[in-house]
Amino acid sequence: MTNPMELIAEPVAEFPCPPLGAAELSAADAERMAGMFKALADPVRLRLFSRVAAHHSGEASVCDIQNVGVSQPTVSHHLKKLREAGLIISERRGTWVYCRVAPGVLPAMARMLAPKD
Amino acid sequence: MTNPMELIAEPVAEFPCPPLGAAELSAADAERMAGMFKALADPVRLRLFSRVAAHHSGEASVCDIQNVGVSQPTVSHHLKKLREAGLIISERRGTWVYCRVAPGVLPAMARMLAPKD
Repeated sequence: MTNPMELIAEPVAEFPCPPLGAAELSAADAERMAGMFKALADPVRLRLFSRVAAHHSGEASVCDIQNVGVSQPTVSHHLKKLREAGLIISERRGTWVYCRVAPGVLPAMARMLAPKD
Repeated sequence: MTNPMELIAEPVAEFPCPPLGAAELSAADAERMAGMFKALADPVRLRLFSRVAAHHSGEASVCDIQNVGVSQPTVSHHLKKLREAGLIISERRGTWVYCRVAPGVLPAMARMLAPKD
């Protein structure tokens, strides 16, 4: 029997990275952080991420966010990239897939970009 | 007579973008913001940016930051990309070029990524 609450999620990234201005970044941290920035470096992907982040209920169905001028398969492709980067998590409930911003990811990214004192 | 303080700077980007979680992003804002994330989406470029941001004096000469395992022309190429994205400003003084993080850019990016209340 299949579970109707099938969770479609990549492991949530951990963010022990120091603020960019506080210490020089190691090669390994740079690789990981660059991957997150890369996920937001596409305008359509960034708009989709913004729609998920700004949705009033805290989560958005794919139906809610897909009118950004690209095909539904393209939306799915971008959501997969955002999931793989640990920026969103998705959950299937019946017919629909619902997305939300991965817990902690926005404060962690904001912390990375905090200017040094 | 050439000016020894020749400023090598792109116009500093303005950042009126709302926090990603506060409102849906327009196509134009998404284009601009994606460009900034793209500039940080390369591990070597991110390390160079981090070295500039973390330098104790607030600015770094190209000499200070270039030991990231790539050639000097590659360093110059990456610094140009960071300048074009409005993330750093550079200034030539005599033989050396000095870089610093563009004023306001780190708090502006952090604000974009601030989670909604």
